[in-house]
Amino acid sequence: MTHSFLMIGQSNMAGRGFLKEVPPIYDEKIKMLRNGRWQMMAEPVNYDRSTSGISLAASFASSWRLFCNQQDNIALIPCADGGTSLEDWSVEGALFQNAVLQAKAAQKISTLSGILWHQGENDSNGQKHLLYKEKLALIIKTLREELNVPDIPLIVGGLGDFLQDGIYGPYFNEHHEVNEALMQFAEDHEHCYFVSAEGLTANPDHIHFNAASQRRFGIRYFKAFQAKTHIMQPLPDEDEILEIINNRVLTKNEKRENLQYQFAMGAITADEFKIQLTKLN
Amino acid sequence: MTHSFLMIGQSNMAGRGFLKEVPPIYDEKIKMLRNGRWQMMAEPVNYDRSTSGISLAASFASSWRLFCNQQDNIALIPCADGGTSLEDWSVEGALFQNAVLQAKAAQKISTLSGILWHQGENDSNGQKHLLYKEKLALIIKTLREELNVPDIPLIVGGLGDFLQDGIYGPYFNEHHEVNEALMQFAEDHEHCYFVSAEGLTANPDHIHFNAASQRRFGIRYFKAFQAKTHIMQPLPDEDEILEIINNRVLTKNEKRENLQYQFAMGAITADEFKIQLTKLN
Repeated sequence: MTHSFLMIGQSNMAGRGFLKEVPPIYDEKIKMLRNGRWQMMAEPVNYDRSTSGISLAASFASSWRLFCNQQDNIALIPCADGGTSLEDWSVEGALFQNAVLQAKAAQKISTLSGILWHQGENDSNGQKHLLYKEKLALIIKTLREELNVPDIPLIVGGLGDFLQDGIYGPYFNEHHEVNEALMQFAEDHEHCYFVSAEGLTANPDHIHFNAASQRRFGIRYFKAFQAKTHIMQPLPDEDEILEIINNRVLTKNEKRENLQYQFAMGAITADEFKIQLTKLN
Repeated sequence: MTHSFLMIGQSNMAGRGFLKEVPPIYDEKIKMLRNGRWQMMAEPVNYDRSTSGISLAASFASSWRLFCNQQDNIALIPCADGGTSLEDWSVEGALFQNAVLQAKAAQKISTLSGILWHQGENDSNGQKHLLYKEKLALIIKTLREELNVPDIPLIVGGLGDFLQDGIYGPYFNEHHEVNEALMQFAEDHEHCYFVSAEGLTANPDHIHFNAASQRRFGIRYFKAFQAKTHIMQPLPDEDEILEIINNRVLTKNEKRENLQYQFAMGAITADEFKIQLTKLN
């Protein structure tokens, strides 16, 4: 059985953490949607831009595998798109329609089990926060109807504390108000849980969560999903869980995938590849 | 106006050329589909796997822009998927259905103007070539009907001469027969043109066209599209055209996109970014 999760929102859901800053996550039971089919997950999962990198989805999925369900597959449906406002996500728009089509394709081959949302930076100015809850409510209501998932958990994450510290800071001058709206939205709606971004840090651009923070954020999203509760502050065991994720021993299949990747990228010769493959078998 | 092109097939259509081996192609009038909307093209265009890289689509689009139409946008619809057989592309399958959905989304915002096909490596054994033309004919006929494009050009490329030289060679022992089937298919069908892969070379894996060869292949695909003719051997002016593509002067918008990319990736500091931006304006 495969349990799938829809990833929607803007760049911090797509993920912009630098790939080389954290150990990769490989797990043959974590899949991602590519062209209507599952592939074994490899980051970046949500390739909306050439800046795509580490998102919260991999550590979310890895936590789910390690602490929730070791038998089944978990699968990610990447539909987030950088720089998009809530208006861009309106139900008549291309992003929403694409997310519905991708999720429906995934539903043919899995059980849609949750929705992961992170968005709001692009609504953090010009008083857009005043309509945030109302607009998001329509998007989520319509999405639940279209996909026939009235009560699967929706996890919404808070915005980074750092947004006003960088050169784009003035653009995010109402990010606290959007954060409040997200929290209030989660309070007001059944099956919806808020996850705080407290303590998470950014890339040098002060817009995007860095790779290490995305890993932590994914663990918080998982805890919210698992416990069906809001997560209002950092979890005490984030480091511990990350260590377990990073120390997981790879299976033979996962090692083989890695070798094939290295050979395909020209990082090892054909002879080395054959020797390493033989050692595996 | 935007003229769009559907990319379908397996890994050599998706593209596996190493990014660092050729100069990048940037052109603000070359777009690619991401989540149902156009983004300015940046390679890899067709991100089906983490090995994705340079494909033939960028030099195809760049040739179109430089030698065919300087006013309009050209846009790429990436739906190719690595390691897929013709059976995987059957009209009931997920890949075909996804390509139809993506192309229909693109048709809302562009005129679908051509179909680029490269596939066959995964049918190069076990006598699968015997049914290749028949199976491909049904796929193309159904695709043309679903998208209502009875007479737009379909460009099909030949397989690499190198396929039997590497460690996967025995798997491709009938690649000449598949190549013949592709040629014959193009002969037999209106609005279909074959493009030879003669002289193109591979990555160390001897499966995938290298980056320089993908650039050449894209120029051949463009010439077939423009002249509505089969291209049965290398073009005499491939080097010359590539030089024109590589020497194109970037516009202010393209330079700004590049700067934003470098800042987002942490390659330049905020101060450097601001200085460079000021110089641009």
